[in-house]
Amino acid sequence: MITAMQWADLDSSACSVARTLAVVGERWSLLIVRDVFNGIRRFDDLQGHLGIARNVLSMRLATLTDGGILTKVPYREGRQRQRHEYELTQAGRELVPIMLTLMSWGDRHRPGGDGPPAQATHDGCGKRVRMVPVCGAGHVLPSAEAIALEPGPGARTAEPPISGEPSVPAPTPDPDPYGVQASLV
Amino acid sequence: MITAMQWADLDSSACSVARTLAVVGERWSLLIVRDVFNGIRRFDDLQGHLGIARNVLSMRLATLTDGGILTKVPYREGRQRQRHEYELTQAGRELVPIMLTLMSWGDRHRPGGDGPPAQATHDGCGKRVRMVPVCGAGHVLPSAEAIALEPGPGARTAEPPISGEPSVPAPTPDPDPYGVQASLV
Repeated sequence: MITAMQWADLDSSACSVARTLAVVGERWSLLIVRDVFNGIRRFDDLQGHLGIARNVLSMRLATLTDGGILTKVPYREGRQRQRHEYELTQAGRELVPIMLTLMSWGDRHRPGGDGPPAQATHDGCGKRVRMVPVCGAGHVLPSAEAIALEPGPGARTAEPPISGEPSVPAPTPDPDPYGVQASLV
Repeated sequence: MITAMQWADLDSSACSVARTLAVVGERWSLLIVRDVFNGIRRFDDLQGHLGIARNVLSMRLATLTDGGILTKVPYREGRQRQRHEYELTQAGRELVPIMLTLMSWGDRHRPGGDGPPAQATHDGCGKRVRMVPVCGAGHVLPSAEAIALEPGPGARTAEPPISGEPSVPAPTPDPDPYGVQASLV
């Protein structure tokens, strides 16, 4: 387990939580991703459903497109001029686990009176889906208390690295995002 | 699978993602939670590590305390006046899965050159922890494509419910946040 002093010595902005929030942490961004995931793909439809100012929606869509979360797909209806709608990229679809953990927390800690407003289900069997913490040895962790954080190879201190020090090679993108093959054998 | 038209008919603000973002979606809020989880618990230490303006940190700490994410614990050093530091509440500790999914996404899609800056491990066995989508039938879902969203009992349309209509009773908080007992049998 990392100590508070060790953590305080690490560069806060190097954290992957901070980097992800830089892309999707703005107000509205994840709600736009949620709506596009649910098939609301056109500017006017998003604007109507979210009740968001048009200029703000324009900015958020541009940020998400520039950030590789959304992609624009052209369409044409009848004889109207060509327009475009939005689709999630692969990186955008991989935000779904973040949405599911946000949903679970809200269902537990900010419930409406009528139960969960939406439920994630397995498209194959229809059963409810939850995000579960699993370790590389296949243990299902019962709660956050069993989770420790440790500095990884990319942890940075405030000082620049010593010149000539060998650096850890960049990882190749993992084809198995959840580590399922590695975790659940 | 919910259709786009069905989703567009549902009240956007009833979504648990929206409710959770109302608590932790402000810039800095989840980074404060991350630091407190890692043992940085005092105002000046948080301010120094995050490099955040003092008035903004004060506001965020007040919001997180009022929202039941952080709690203030008094301490006294030597003969100084009593001060307080921050601890995560149970609801705050249950934000850790959200942090882990944010970390995983950042590690994959916004990597630094040197690999992950931090790694979550199982405090018991030291192996790496990941959040894995698991359904109630025990299937591990290989990707977000296998996840569907459906309206739940709390889904609301724009119209108010018909007067006298029986409502679904509020759920009692689930003692098993990950549904592990139910999911992995």
